Amino acid sequence: MTMDRIPQALWLPVTQMKDLEEHPALRICSGKGIYVYNAKGKPYIDAISSWWTNIFGHANPRITHALAKQAAQLEHVLFAGVIHPPAEELARRLADLTPDELTKVFFAGDGASAVEIAMKMSYGYRRNTGQPEKRRFVGLSGGYHGETLGALSICGHDAFSDIYRPLMPDNISVTGPDCYRCPYDRTRTDCDAECFEPMERTLEERGREITAVFVEPLAQGAAGWRFYPPRYLHKLRECTRHHDIHLAFDEIAVGFGRLGTMFAMEQAGVTPDFVTLSKSITSGTLPLSVVMTTDAVYESFLGDFTELKAFMHSHTYMGNPLACAVANETLSMFEELNVLETNKPKYRHLADYAAQRFAGHRHVGEVRSLGFITCVELVADPGTRTPLDWKQRTGFRIFREALKRGALLRNLGDCIYFLPPYVITQDEITRLVDIAHAAMVEVLGE
Amino acid sequence: MTMDRIPQALWLPVTQMKDLEEHPALRICSGKGIYVYNAKGKPYIDAISSWWTNIFGHANPRITHALAKQAAQLEHVLFAGVIHPPAEELARRLADLTPDELTKVFFAGDGASAVEIAMKMSYGYRRNTGQPEKRRFVGLSGGYHGETLGALSICGHDAFSDIYRPLMPDNISVTGPDCYRCPYDRTRTDCDAECFEPMERTLEERGREITAVFVEPLAQGAAGWRFYPPRYLHKLRECTRHHDIHLAFDEIAVGFGRLGTMFAMEQAGVTPDFVTLSKSITSGTLPLSVVMTTDAVYESFLGDFTELKAFMHSHTYMGNPLACAVANETLSMFEELNVLETNKPKYRHLADYAAQRFAGHRHVGEVRSLGFITCVELVADPGTRTPLDWKQRTGFRIFREALKRGALLRNLGDCIYFLPPYVITQDEITRLVDIAHAAMVEVLGE
Repeated sequence: MTMDRIPQALWLPVTQMKDLEEHPALRICSGKGIYVYNAKGKPYIDAISSWWTNIFGHANPRITHALAKQAAQLEHVLFAGVIHPPAEELARRLADLTPDELTKVFFAGDGASAVEIAMKMSYGYRRNTGQPEKRRFVGLSGGYHGETLGALSICGHDAFSDIYRPLMPDNISVTGPDCYRCPYDRTRTDCDAECFEPMERTLEERGREITAVFVEPLAQGAAGWRFYPPRYLHKLRECTRHHDIHLAFDEIAVGFGRLGTMFAMEQAGVTPDFVTLSKSITSGTLPLSVVMTTDAVYESFLGDFTELKAFMHSHTYMGNPLACAVANETLSMFEELNVLETNKPKYRHLADYAAQRFAGHRHVGEVRSLGFITCVELVADPGTRTPLDWKQRTGFRIFREALKRGALLRNLGDCIYFLPPYVITQDEITRLVDIAHAAMVEVLGE
Repeated sequence: MTMDRIPQALWLPVTQMKDLEEHPALRICSGKGIYVYNAKGKPYIDAISSWWTNIFGHANPRITHALAKQAAQLEHVLFAGVIHPPAEELARRLADLTPDELTKVFFAGDGASAVEIAMKMSYGYRRNTGQPEKRRFVGLSGGYHGETLGALSICGHDAFSDIYRPLMPDNISVTGPDCYRCPYDRTRTDCDAECFEPMERTLEERGREITAVFVEPLAQGAAGWRFYPPRYLHKLRECTRHHDIHLAFDEIAVGFGRLGTMFAMEQAGVTPDFVTLSKSITSGTLPLSVVMTTDAVYESFLGDFTELKAFMHSHTYMGNPLACAVANETLSMFEELNVLETNKPKYRHLADYAAQRFAGHRHVGEVRSLGFITCVELVADPGTRTPLDWKQRTGFRIFREALKRGALLRNLGDCIYFLPPYVITQDEITRLVDIAHAAMVEVLGE
């Protein structure tokens, strides 16, 4: 328990640094495929794809080659009034891959910045079209959109935002879907999204002051991978249209095949007014984020220079050629390797095998899957769905046990989940699930 | 004037897209040293280092090599509870390069995110130490700290922030130094920072509700490179200490040698409680930002896990190994190439030659220099310092003329400035200044 176990000078994110006295940070020195390795060469399966980013494996040769090639050509150039081939190509490809209405691609920095840009574009549109009273944003309980103060104001997580409320703009949080604990006693396959009711009421009562609703479509990640049916989004699209409110899909976590389709919006059959993308867009290599929107929004900012209507928002590295080149290679790999098809038997095996291994355990509440994500929610009592006592840190203890056994499974509270790189094999999936199961049994017993 | 001059699908930052009908975007296909090239191979001197980032030239072989090497080793791994050698090395080196009090290094995403993290850490410290009423931030007129809503709330630029006020937290803007138009009729070398008076009054009157003051030390970039003397910062440090207010230096634009010293804080002889870094930290290659702070701030977040005091803020790619590796190579080059010394004769020549070439012109108000930045402020009348009519877009027209002549000089309003990569030679500096001068004469006459 010495202080030297805390890495000198480093302050790590979402980490109680005092914890490191007892539970030292994992020190990773290299990566290859689905594995990351410590200094002694011990492999760990990167079970959550390094925060939901990596899809083609660590140190993927095609990605590394694309990066090196672009670095020798043009590593970066400012992006104001300047364009370059990698950004042009990426913008065109993203426009081709998404619904026809999403015509415009605005590059940003990190994911939170993309969300803030969408917020500012939405409100800017109101100013440009004579509706300045529409200035509030709506987010869902359990929603996560990043932690800069604007993005944080539409998140539904007290742990992230409670103490910073006095610093944040005053936006609106609405109770969203929670299918595992459905208050209407329905199931995902047998419901009409009755839980849309609080949203409907909010938009009805406060629609005149609301400019946009932000949601993570079909899957709320930080909430513990809460999956919810498309019906909710159909109702939301209809209702936002009725009240002249923008709908923004935050696909930062789920875009690029994670839910089985390239984007959640196509699976849901809904076209939003804004979509934010990031994470896997560079195969988990380096930061790049994107806001896509419609002609209507874009055109509201057009005018003569002296009207001062240009959309004012910049980040130094927006449109970074390295990141764009890697993103273009990522999209080429999707096509050439037929990734969406190749993934299907893999994630079906993941869903089936995890259900088989975990279901029935006296602390397993639900094993749920959507596309290439399977989540095991642990509870005190599956009958009543009562959560475990969070102070016991059950999920964290399972994460530590899994580390010993060679898997990097970062828990979300008492949810253990599998979100591996797409290049994982079925045998490796079996092994990963077995490791997680053994770790759970070690902590909770048979 | 056809619409096809607007790049299909792309929406560029801080650019009136309608302008592109008349003034097409510059299309850059490659870079080498101080030059970027269009598709036909026409070179442009990157006179502002691609938004103040590039220091060792485009496609620098050492940087490219460091990037490719790290990409083959470990391109990325999540950074929560995980560490890796490039981040450990970079944190240690940054701690060594900065004042002893700045012990902790927190990695972020883009520059705006770093500023928001510093804001949240400052306020979190207040919550952790029983001063929740200290919740407001102070910024300077002309200050720029990024454009996410929290960072924007402490910027002093109406063009960026005015329309978004209804979305932003309510912070405090104080009139800051403006030496060219000093209201006290002093000069930079003959003043006692009399202009500190509004700040002193604000901190005196509202100190109890203020947690931190954010400034760009010695040089306000987006304001048109307003340089101001260290005395202002001495007074600010003393006064913030007196009122128990954090002082945050945003060195995103000026860190890493731009003002002649490695950081502005050492030149000013002032140690802040927070410093934010980004831009040149990766030699202008890819995004990385950093917040550094003190033990006092860090320790206020320590506690048992169940106290829930950990600093909650994350960005997916924080601590990105590629970016850290490139930053480490950047710092090695600073040492091995003795960059701070080598730069001196270059920027002295820049200052002298620009003064010689521009001073005395009937529209040149001031030619000012600090370190490797020289700025020419154009005015209607140097006698009265009356600005030019902004609607004439004089600076922009000079920028367009300079492009024709082979220099990428992005104006800040009617300020034309030189902030080139450090690898520029004295001959190239001469040529760059000559191009800018010729462009000015083309637009404004002799």
